[in-house]
This record gives sequence, structure tokens and C-alpha cells, in this order.
Amino acid sequence: MAPTVTQDAVLSDAQIADLAQQLRVDSVRAADAAGSGHPTSSMSAAELIAVLLARHLHYDFRHPELPGNDHLIFSKGHASPLLYAAYKAAGAISDDELLTFRKLGSRLEGHPTPKIPWVDVATGSLGQGLPIGVGVALAGARLDHLPYRTWVLCGDSELAEGSVWEAFEHAGMEGLDNLTVMIDVNRLGQRGPTRHGWDLDAYARRIRAFGWHTIEIDGHDVQAVDEAMTAARDNRGAPTAIIARTRKGRGVAAVEDKEGKHGKPLPDAEEAIRELGGMRSLRVHVQEPEQAAEPKRPADDPDARLPRYDKGGSVATRTAFGEALAAFGGLRGDIVALDGEVGDSTKAGLFGEAHPERYIECYIAEQELIGTAVGLGVRGWTPYASTFAAFLTRAHDFLRMAAVSRSDLNVVGTHAGVAIGEDGPSQMALEDLAMTRSLHGSTVLYPCDANQTVQLITAMAERTGISYLRATRGNTPVIYGPGDAFPIGGSKVLRSGPDDQVTLIGAGVTVHEALAAADMLAEEGVKARVIDLYSIKPVDAKTLREAAEATGRFVTVEDHHPEGGLADAVLESFGNGHPMPLLTRLAVHSMPGSATPREQLDAAGIGATAIAAAARKLAAA
Amino acid sequence: MAPTVTQDAVLSDAQIADLAQQLRVDSVRAADAAGSGHPTSSMSAAELIAVLLARHLHYDFRHPELPGNDHLIFSKGHASPLLYAAYKAAGAISDDELLTFRKLGSRLEGHPTPKIPWVDVATGSLGQGLPIGVGVALAGARLDHLPYRTWVLCGDSELAEGSVWEAFEHAGMEGLDNLTVMIDVNRLGQRGPTRHGWDLDAYARRIRAFGWHTIEIDGHDVQAVDEAMTAARDNRGAPTAIIARTRKGRGVAAVEDKEGKHGKPLPDAEEAIRELGGMRSLRVHVQEPEQAAEPKRPADDPDARLPRYDKGGSVATRTAFGEALAAFGGLRGDIVALDGEVGDSTKAGLFGEAHPERYIECYIAEQELIGTAVGLGVRGWTPYASTFAAFLTRAHDFLRMAAVSRSDLNVVGTHAGVAIGEDGPSQMALEDLAMTRSLHGSTVLYPCDANQTVQLITAMAERTGISYLRATRGNTPVIYGPGDAFPIGGSKVLRSGPDDQVTLIGAGVTVHEALAAADMLAEEGVKARVIDLYSIKPVDAKTLREAAEATGRFVTVEDHHPEGGLADAVLESFGNGHPMPLLTRLAVHSMPGSATPREQLDAAGIGATAIAAAARKLAAA
Repeated sequence: MAPTVTQDAVLSDAQIADLAQQLRVDSVRAADAAGSGHPTSSMSAAELIAVLLARHLHYDFRHPELPGNDHLIFSKGHASPLLYAAYKAAGAISDDELLTFRKLGSRLEGHPTPKIPWVDVATGSLGQGLPIGVGVALAGARLDHLPYRTWVLCGDSELAEGSVWEAFEHAGMEGLDNLTVMIDVNRLGQRGPTRHGWDLDAYARRIRAFGWHTIEIDGHDVQAVDEAMTAARDNRGAPTAIIARTRKGRGVAAVEDKEGKHGKPLPDAEEAIRELGGMRSLRVHVQEPEQAAEPKRPADDPDARLPRYDKGGSVATRTAFGEALAAFGGLRGDIVALDGEVGDSTKAGLFGEAHPERYIECYIAEQELIGTAVGLGVRGWTPYASTFAAFLTRAHDFLRMAAVSRSDLNVVGTHAGVAIGEDGPSQMALEDLAMTRSLHGSTVLYPCDANQTVQLITAMAERTGISYLRATRGNTPVIYGPGDAFPIGGSKVLRSGPDDQVTLIGAGVTVHEALAAADMLAEEGVKARVIDLYSIKPVDAKTLREAAEATGRFVTVEDHHPEGGLADAVLESFGNGHPMPLLTRLAVHSMPGSATPREQLDAAGIGATAIAAAARKLAAA
Repeated sequence: MAPTVTQDAVLSDAQIADLAQQLRVDSVRAADAAGSGHPTSSMSAAELIAVLLARHLHYDFRHPELPGNDHLIFSKGHASPLLYAAYKAAGAISDDELLTFRKLGSRLEGHPTPKIPWVDVATGSLGQGLPIGVGVALAGARLDHLPYRTWVLCGDSELAEGSVWEAFEHAGMEGLDNLTVMIDVNRLGQRGPTRHGWDLDAYARRIRAFGWHTIEIDGHDVQAVDEAMTAARDNRGAPTAIIARTRKGRGVAAVEDKEGKHGKPLPDAEEAIRELGGMRSLRVHVQEPEQAAEPKRPADDPDARLPRYDKGGSVATRTAFGEALAAFGGLRGDIVALDGEVGDSTKAGLFGEAHPERYIECYIAEQELIGTAVGLGVRGWTPYASTFAAFLTRAHDFLRMAAVSRSDLNVVGTHAGVAIGEDGPSQMALEDLAMTRSLHGSTVLYPCDANQTVQLITAMAERTGISYLRATRGNTPVIYGPGDAFPIGGSKVLRSGPDDQVTLIGAGVTVHEALAAADMLAEEGVKARVIDLYSIKPVDAKTLREAAEATGRFVTVEDHHPEGGLADAVLESFGNGHPMPLLTRLAVHSMPGSATPREQLDAAGIGATAIAAAARKLAAA
């Protein structure tokens, strides 16, 4: 067994090589104890991580909250054994804990998550670490003005993901010289050889074309890795990619550079450990960050005023979103806004005009939009990311992973539903409620009025998890006063009486259709209750149950496909034995074409006339 | 008014320049008649399309089904006025029809869709035309062995989308010299200037790095455009990108190269038409394709046999999928399989071993995976695209648009739910049922058994629209015989009796948990009906209503988040006034970590014990 190195020692090249072997041994041991995991993908990057820990990372494991700490993101999250082995070498976890890898209750999961205090974001869906790393680096360079560096470890396979190229483009154009990506080119993906194998230059050419500095090295040569990291730190004006030729399963002949060895423990762990030179118990002293580093945050302006709209006016909820966010950005210096090159339409551009230094233009790259927002959130900023609701589907996997990351993220999708009119189905979000409701721990809001939008936009910032607000393109009547309250999880009963026969439930644009339908019905003597269900998740079960008891009949109406949206949310209230009302669900069943907003609502059968007809029939049932 | 050119005339450069002006005039007129639309984005690309029509495209508008026809994909779908103006110039539509643009009932929608016989796929969500074009070109080069060319018109803004770079990579590596992308670099996006403005070389550098041939030109110079297209046709071994410097709104001073003129009619259409030289009625003769061109298709092998599994065995549904697909590929020569570099795990690799010429490795690029599949479908191939179900969320927007394209697409997602075990939440699909159910016209299947999987995999090929099958990682008992029938829209009642007190409803892995729970309950004297709801959409309303009438109490259990999945599908059966049963919904409410599959099911409360407990409580209610 090699000698234990004390915390203060500076490791020589030979000792770092030894440390790399220890990281391999511990990766093998962790996967062996678990009976699963990715030791071979860990072994290829051992020198990269050993050199980083020993010479370049600045991080205080006792105080992960320090603003000056560097950030290390394992984009190739399946190499988690290597990360956990590094934590052990840094003295952050014990050997006993290392061996809880992948076991029930252990924070050392198959892929890293922020259950671990030193993990910024969950990884394991490939191609997400770099987009998020861009957000973290951007916060340091442009917002926090802090000297920390962001280091991202990528695999070679994941460079096939377009999201990675969105990130290369964004970081290159921003000139983020505080960002380094280390690409572990071990030539073998899960199924077999990657597209480019060991053609390092194929990667370098592409990445350089996007404005990055690139360095190609032998990733098992400690000195070469060290020099590359030094060069990356010294390079100014552009981010650096260290493209390292490595061998998967390096150091163990039974698996080294062999196909079919991905994602499984080594066939003979004991023999492998012997081959790697046996157990070691090296401790590495990771350099501390600048303790006094403090982020620069714009001051809150308590005199800023949220917009107020006059009842009886007509304002688009997207406009109210933009105006509210711009004002909210005055009230709170931690608010940042990001948009996908449609800020003139989403109205996020109004925030950009008021607070240009806190407005991030992400161009038409929705994965990078959400990834950057998550990265800014890592540094404690409160992000609002917006684009057309339809195009948020582009970032579904990033939203899914943001939930695993326990990210507090505000997302606004405008131009929802058929109500946009002439542009046609490619621009219509008709699946966004299903998508956002299904995200773990999410909040889903859908205002029908400008004052309601203002309240909900500010309330989102107080929620944990992913909060989504759906906004409408066209003007809708202002039916609430600026002082009205709209608690998340609540609803508004807009019409009700003791002898209501049916309840009409809408949100957003369909609230106004439901009100018009109630007027039509009233003329015929049919009494309809009307509920504005602006909080789709969590849903106001109490009010819905009361309405079910009182009327026994529901008509739900939504500008969304029938599956996964408002009607399904309503029915949630009737789980666990609560008797359900009779229900007619109106939604967009057909494929829309082009037409005016009014024609669209009628063609889809979610306009006032259709609602009244459905209610009339149900009330008579 | 300029003279009408007869169908047979070959246009001179000057006449083509005139044709380009006509396309501009007609774009302005169409948008003006509609009161909305994108004339300025059309005007920048007028010479590109005029030259293509007059000199390079081979297309028979009377016979769009001809295999030898070229393919023209307007990735910048918002330039639809230009496309429709081109159809008019080619004699395919009348001037009267042109002026129905964006009106209710017109096939000339705001963004092109295959309602129009000459449109292959819907566009309008940017960054999708090239990925799909790669599929179309790949079909010609590698499968059909046909001489057609694929031409894709892209905007500059959309090059920010990562999906475009997935496509550049795929096409570059495949050496698709039958594919040409024309990039209309008009420098202005929707909100304002693009990232690279008129820096053509910024685009060329990037695209060349991905193995493409690039040509930079003045996009308003007819001769330059013509030479570039000739070079693109002559270039061998690599696809070509024509990078054209253009001016948005070209030809009309009020809008030319001006910000704030995106997506709206021209301020003064009459004046604009005058400025463009007035109305013209040129007809362009588009060259006909090789009439005799016939695709080469592998012969069907009627002797191929689908796999059969013995009852009582234990087989993963993903394995049954792979074995079934490999066999089905023998039975039918039109089947192609695509996978995202996980074919060893999804088992699509078994198809690859059996039919290597029909297996497309898309690497870890799920948008390109679905885009390529849609493109192969354009050419009449029957694609099955597979990856881990969790990572299909990456392609949500492509799936959404495939529905608008009326694409017949088979998608298989494996490793669903917490049942995967130790890998943890990043690898667990817990949102896929919500996502796929919400797609317009989709079919959603979730088998619990190997023989059932075989039946459903072959049945998918007969469905229109997007069909999704969810498969499980671990082995599950074979409970059905190879001869059992599983019609889509059906279900299997596995346990039932005249005095059932409660109905347990599961699909996939939870069917087996429900059966075990029914056994537990039976020992206590509680009689439970058990339904295998393998068809999530369409759902078997009749059987569910009968069970509701008979038992009045449902326990639904799904390995999915509570929103948008099986429980919501079950409740669909009770719309329109059908009285609903009491319901307890079991689903994955918490964020999973790592654990064994058994521990995961129990921790999530969807294992047999939890089902029995819920049923016991509900039966007593």
C-alpha cells in the first residue's frame, strides 16, 4: 500500500499518476460493491480528474456555498464512480460511503444529483453538462464578476447531441475564458465505436470553428494534462476544449479498449485492483478558492412598481408578463431573463430594455436557453426563461433533468393554443400543459387576465422546482382588479348561485369563452357556475369538489389537446374515493389549420357556442 | 405586365431575375390578402428559389408520387408565401388560390403542411427541415438507390438550433452528395440581428468542419446562384451548403434590410408591387424527373417467422421488441430501424444484425433520430426509431411536428420507469406516456409480456400517425400464449368474477404487481378484478366502463409520474356523462434515487403490497 499523503503536500507528477490509479481502483471497487455502474468510463478519465484535483481546481469541500468555488460538472454522469472516488481522495467522503454506491438511500446514485452538496446539477442525460456549464460560467463572467472557473467533463459520444453545439456556439460568442471542457475521447460509446474514434482533430476542427481554443493531448500523460489545464487557465478571450485521447477501462487488460465492456462491473475486481497496483489511500489537497470573493448583485429597488391594469381594458397576458417581469427586475436584483430570439413576441424584451445587463439572448436554441437558465440558478440567480410555448417542447429533456437537479426555474411559454390564429399548428402549443404537469414537483399556471398574470409572475419566484406560466398571444379582457389575490393552488369562482346546474371550468383564453357561454345559458334559464382554474398544478381540489357536490356536472374547456391538460388536472381532485361529477371535456381534438383566432376557437369546439351546447346537453342528462 | 412565358421555354438569366421579382410580388400579395405572414423572409430567398425552379429542380407537379422526383423542403417554413408563389409560377396552383393564403379552409397555411401534395413534411418549427432532409437523402442514396436530389432551404437564424448540427454531422459522415442546403443569410432574425450577421465565413467554417462542401455567394446574383447549384449537383462524396448573402425584404425600400419588419405584411403593398416592377405572369417549366426511376426494395420473405415465447418463461419486453422487429424486417422489406447508439440495450441491434443495410445508427442525437425516421417515411419506408424512453423527451418537438406532418412513425422507448433500478432518475422515463398521449392522433402501447410485445410491434405498422411502444428493461413473466390476440384499443381482463369488489388496472410492469396484489387480496377474501391496459391510447372504454359498473372502485397503478399517464387515460372513458368509479391512483409521486428494481417499485408505492393496501382501503370505503 502506498503511503498516505498529508493534506498540505503538493503532489508530484508521479504521485498524481498514483492518484489516478487510486481513482481507478476506487471506481472498480464501487461498481463491484454495487454490482452495476460504469467503471470503464471512469477509468479513461482518471488522469484528467487527478490532475484537476491536485493542481487546478479551487474548491472548499467544507463550504460548497462559497461564491469563489470553482464548478466541476460531470456531463458524462455515468462516470460517477470516478467523481465519488475523487470525493474520497479529497477527504469529502469516507471509503465506507463510497461503497454505498447505487444502494437504496445512498446519496451516491448511479448518476450524480445535487443530493450531494458538491454536485451543482444532475447529469446522466448526455449533452447537458456543457449547456449548463455555459450558464454557470456566464454568471461568473457577466453577472457575478467572480474569478471562479467552470470545468466540464464530457464524453466523446455525447458530442453527437446538438445541445452541445448550441453550447459551443453560445460560449464561443460570449468569449467565456473561465470555461474549460475536458473531452474524454475513449473512442467507445455504449454500443461500440463512436463516429470519430480517436480522430481528435475531427473534434478540434469542429470546436475551433465555433470560436474555441482547442488543445489535443494524450489524456493519460499527467504532464500533458497539467500543461493543457494551465494553458486553459491562461488563455484569454475564448473558452478552451482539452481533447484527450484516452483508453476506456485503462489499466486493466481484460477491459481496456474493448467493446462490450460499457456499463458493467469488471469481470474480476480483485485481479483488476492487483493489476492497477493495489489499494492506495492517497489524500489530495484541493486548493481553496479566494475566500473573500463576493458576487456583485444589482441592488433591489423598493420603489419599483408592478404594472396595474384597469378593469374593462383589453391586454394580452404575454404583454402583462413582459411588463411585470421588467418591473419585478427592478424590485429584485436577482432576477435574470433569458429568451430564444423572440423577445419582441414573448415581450421578455421589455425586461431586456429595462435591465440589459441581466438579459441573456439565447437565440433559437431552446435547449441552451433552459440549460443556461439552470446554470444561472446554480449561482443563485432567479431565472425566467421564455419562448413560444410550442418550442419549449424542444427543451423537454432539459426540463425533466432540471427537476432531477432540484432546480428552481421559472419558464414562460407564450402563443399557446389555437388562439394564436393564422400561423397554424406548427406554432401552437397544444401539448405544453401535459409536458409541464408531468415534470416532478412542477407548478403550472395559466392566467386569463393581465392583473392575474402580474400576480402569478411574481409568485413563481417564491416556488421551489420548475414553475411554468402559459400566456396567450391575443388581447383578453381585464376582468380582475390590480389588488385581487391569486394564490397558487387556488381558483376564482366567477359565477355561482345556490341552484347552479352545471359548472364550466376554463383557464386562460377559455375563461372568457366560458363566461360568454354562461351568459347564453342564463338567457335560456340554465344556471352555470364558472371557475377560472388559473392554477393547473397544484389544482384547487376544494373548490372543484364543492362545485361537483353542488352541480354534479362539469364542462371543462381547454385550448390544448385532450390529453394531459386541464381536464386531467380537474379529475385529479377526485382521486382517493371522492365521487366524481359527470364530465364533458372540450379540447382541441382535430388538427388545426390557418384561420382567425375566433374561427380557430369555434372550429376546435372550445368557443362559447360549443361550451353552451355541451352544458345544455349535460344539464339535461 | 411582362409577357407570359410558355411552359417549354428555357429562361435566360434576365428572365429568371424577372421570375424572382414575380415571386416577391406574389409573396407581398399573398401576405397582403391574408393580413399576416412573412413576406420579407420570402423576398430574401427569391433568386434562390427562382433559379432552383428554372434550372435545377426535377419535379412533376402532376405526379408528386413519382419516385424520381426531387424533394424541396422549406425548413424556414415561415417563408411559405415564397413557396406558394413558386407553386403558382410552376402552374401548380392558380392566382385565386394563392390569395386564399392563411384563410380558414385553405391548404395554403401560415406554414406549409402535407395537406399540399407537393409538401413532404410540415415545417415552421425551425431547425427541422435539414434533419428530415437527411432522412430523405439517405433513403435515396442508401436504400432506394434513386437519382433524386434533396434541396433544403434554411434561414440563418435557425442554424442556432443544435438539431441542425446533428444533421450536418450525420449527412457529412454519410457523404450525402445528393443533399444541398441553401442558407438564406438575410442577417435579420425575428427580434433583430442574428449572431453572425452577414459573416458568411462564420457559417462556412462551421459547416466545412462537419465534412460539407461549402459555397459562399451573393444570393441575389442569378448567375452566382446558378453556378453554385450546378457545383452542388456536380460535387461528389459530400453534401453541399450554399451560403447566400441576401437582404430581408429585398427590393422594397420601406422594408429592405430593416429591423422590425419580420412576420407582417408590407406597409403599402401597392407601392411595393410598383417598386418591384409590377405584376407579372411568368410560368416556369420545371424539369421532369427520370420517369422510369424505381426504388430498390428488399423482397418480403413470407417464410420469416415471428418469435414465440413459452408461457411461464421470463423475458424482457425490450428483448421481445428487438427479436420481433428483426423477424418483422424479414417478413416486410419496407421496415427500417434507427437507434440512438443504444441498440445493444434497446435490442434494436438485433434488427441491425439481421438487416444491416436497413439499420441506421443515429448515435446520441435523438432529434436527428426522429428527423431521419420522418424523412425515410417520406419515401415510403416504414421506420421504427428506438432509444431509452427517457431520452425521447429530447425529440418532443420533432414528434409534435411529425404529427403535423401526418407522418406514420413507429417509436419504441425502452428502460421505462423506476423499474430500471440502480441507474437512477436521469435514465427513468416517467413522463413519456404524458408526452406521447398528448401528440395528435397518436397510439400509445405498453406491453407487459413478450408475446404481447410481438403482436403490438407488428400492429403498429398498420396504424396511421405516431405509434409509441413503451418497453421495460427487466425480465417479466410470459403470461400470454403466442397465439393470443391484442387488438389496439383493447385490454385483457386477467382476473374477474361476478362479485368483484375492486378493479386493479395496470400496464407493463405493474400488471404483474397487480396480479400479485390480487392474490394477496384473495387470501383475505377481497375479490379483485385485474385489467391489463396495454393500449393506453386508444383506451378500451367499454371494458373499463363494465368494470366500473361491476365494481365501482378502481385502483390504477403506473410506473410513471401521476400526471398524464395511465390513470388519466382510464378516466377518459368516463367523459360525456358516464358515471365515474371511485378511484385511487398509484404512481411515482416522489423523486427516485438508486435502488434495486424491487426496492424502487416498493419505494414508489406501486408494488404489489402497496396495491393491495390501496385496494383493501378502497374496497372498504
